[in-house]
Amino acid sequence: MKLVAIYRQPPDSESFDQAYFGTHLPLLEKVPGLQRTVITRFSRTVMGEDLYLMAEMYFQDLEALKNGMRSPEMAAAGKNLNSFAEGLTTLLFAEEIEDGR
Amino acid sequence: MKLVAIYRQPPDSESFDQAYFGTHLPLLEKVPGLQRTVITRFSRTVMGEDLYLMAEMYFQDLEALKNGMRSPEMAAAGKNLNSFAEGLTTLLFAEEIEDGR
Repeated sequence: MKLVAIYRQPPDSESFDQAYFGTHLPLLEKVPGLQRTVITRFSRTVMGEDLYLMAEMYFQDLEALKNGMRSPEMAAAGKNLNSFAEGLTTLLFAEEIEDGR
Repeated sequence: MKLVAIYRQPPDSESFDQAYFGTHLPLLEKVPGLQRTVITRFSRTVMGEDLYLMAEMYFQDLEALKNGMRSPEMAAAGKNLNSFAEGLTTLLFAEEIEDGR
């Protein structure tokens, strides 16, 4: 089970990066039950929306994810996020269902 | 290096799944240089856009990805995709830049 955050292209990517990697990720890493975070940087849009960054945050299962979401650590990370990424963020629960080849 | 396809919620998810898993993925798996495909199904939107599915397609490097994009196999997979996912798709080049914890 994972929590996926997708960020659209920010107006100022340098200050976004400073806030994201400097303050947001360290707060996020304190969330109980979070096992692993994979960050993806989008480099070129072939079709559709201009996206900037994605974070995939892995938890043991749905219950662990829900517990993480309800934690004060996640509330702090979310509050921090709103200070620099409001309107840019899509946040979803997700599951990897196939790992082909 | 990876190619990331993100699909918004389709009007009919059952027929989307039939086309995607039944015809699109088998065509995609023929693309030269594709090493691994990870499919993510979104189950709940916490914030932002209603997304449905994501495919992360891994290649050795940018050159391998570009060669894959130019291949007749990718053209066939793209043509197939347009037959059922037009207007739903965002497609981007991307790189995993951090794997924390």
